Amino acid sequence: MAISRSVFFVSDGTGITAETLGHSLLAQFQGLSVQQSRVPFVDDTDKAHDAVARINTAAIRDGSRPIVFMSVVRPEVSAVLREANAFFIDVLESFIGPLEVELGIKSTHTSGRFKGLAESQDYRRRIEAINFSLSHDDGMSHKELNTADLILVGVSRSGKTPTSLYLAMQYGVKAANYPLIPEDFERNQLPVELNKYRHKLFGLTIAPERLAAIREERRPNSTYSSLANCRQEVESAQKLMKREGIRWLDSSTKSIEEIAATILQTIKIELPGFQG
Amino acid sequence: MAISRSVFFVSDGTGITAETLGHSLLAQFQGLSVQQSRVPFVDDTDKAHDAVARINTAAIRDGSRPIVFMSVVRPEVSAVLREANAFFIDVLESFIGPLEVELGIKSTHTSGRFKGLAESQDYRRRIEAINFSLSHDDGMSHKELNTADLILVGVSRSGKTPTSLYLAMQYGVKAANYPLIPEDFERNQLPVELNKYRHKLFGLTIAPERLAAIREERRPNSTYSSLANCRQEVESAQKLMKREGIRWLDSSTKSIEEIAATILQTIKIELPGFQG
Repeated sequence: MAISRSVFFVSDGTGITAETLGHSLLAQFQGLSVQQSRVPFVDDTDKAHDAVARINTAAIRDGSRPIVFMSVVRPEVSAVLREANAFFIDVLESFIGPLEVELGIKSTHTSGRFKGLAESQDYRRRIEAINFSLSHDDGMSHKELNTADLILVGVSRSGKTPTSLYLAMQYGVKAANYPLIPEDFERNQLPVELNKYRHKLFGLTIAPERLAAIREERRPNSTYSSLANCRQEVESAQKLMKREGIRWLDSSTKSIEEIAATILQTIKIELPGFQG
Repeated sequence: MAISRSVFFVSDGTGITAETLGHSLLAQFQGLSVQQSRVPFVDDTDKAHDAVARINTAAIRDGSRPIVFMSVVRPEVSAVLREANAFFIDVLESFIGPLEVELGIKSTHTSGRFKGLAESQDYRRRIEAINFSLSHDDGMSHKELNTADLILVGVSRSGKTPTSLYLAMQYGVKAANYPLIPEDFERNQLPVELNKYRHKLFGLTIAPERLAAIREERRPNSTYSSLANCRQEVESAQKLMKREGIRWLDSSTKSIEEIAATILQTIKIELPGFQG
């Protein structure tokens, strides 16, 4: 029997922390079906009262109390929220106390992951990386490839563009990407522009069947999307990457997040320090 | 006095959940300085032993035990990890028990937020949205604007592109973006292509000083980047948006995440259902 619940992500910031953790937890329950609502920027008691009203309305409508993932720093705001008829998962408060003891300092109870972040060095790095990835998408420019952290290579539609953008956005990694095309396979050599950046190259490959399906959506009934052509391109690309000693992974059954985390692990780009 | 600690994000998946929550928590402690390490894909006891060795090495080097944010589903793997000399924040296990009681069902103890996700509808929606945002960046195409969830407008470099991409990547929202340019201001009218999509428009504005600084990095000493020109463009854009009744926000001091969450709240794009 399917179990159904309303779920709220309530936060004094964007709600990304509550939502990320909430999804990880909810994914552990098979057969659970949920109706999700985001309630961001609940940073005063008035907004908390509004949130309580929404939660209580859902409780009455559903005939069961909603699950509330709560990420709110100010105690007077969370106190209001706790008046709602709900089951609470307090994603910050559960750990702040133990961390205070461990570190021997008090938390500031200031809100939000991104407070002041727009001006921070880490944030600037991410924005720069996004601009870099966009201007170095699909071999668009060879300029400044020397400043790239990483250059993704692979056949058209193997997942290079979304992976580059995700690496930039989530991790501030400057990832260019460069297509491997039939001309490269005929010569059985890398595009000449990439020769001096061999140590930065990382390949993506993909199952020919999946590639054909993806290409078919873009150019139906074309040679480009035919299974025979996809097979040949993928095989040639793998042969080329093997010959050139390029590390690669298969993107067929991996999410962008998994591809990105795997690449970072392999090329060992270290995380920057963090100042609280 | 600054307190310094090593921090590890250990996960059987990508580690995004542990890292997101970890950053929110660490941001609560002013004066804390940390050295971060990601240890993803720890899904068997061998990898767990490797992780323990890394953590213990840091403990000896630092002379203090590291903080480990742990997101691991299989009990035999987390049992090994707990042998490390560290302070643990178990981001899943802390809440799984209470949730099991609340829902009246057992968790599956299967790992990872993204298991099977690459094939899921939600994931396909996000990939489609990324492709849509890329092909509708900077007014590049008017085709299929009818299928956009949202069209961002604003002067060049007001933050439209990264915001569109973030909305696509994080939320699966199909966001196009369209520049407002001097010709539009002379006519004091929206680009004609946008007239029939007025209900989907959302504006970004920015402080002229900040805009000038951003533009200066791209085209130093140009009219384009001069403060006088930025002032005039921003003023004209705001006048136009006001006249046309377009909702807008100021991106100057907001992160992309905050801009995206604010826009979603305003235009009320609902979250899809979720099946565990």
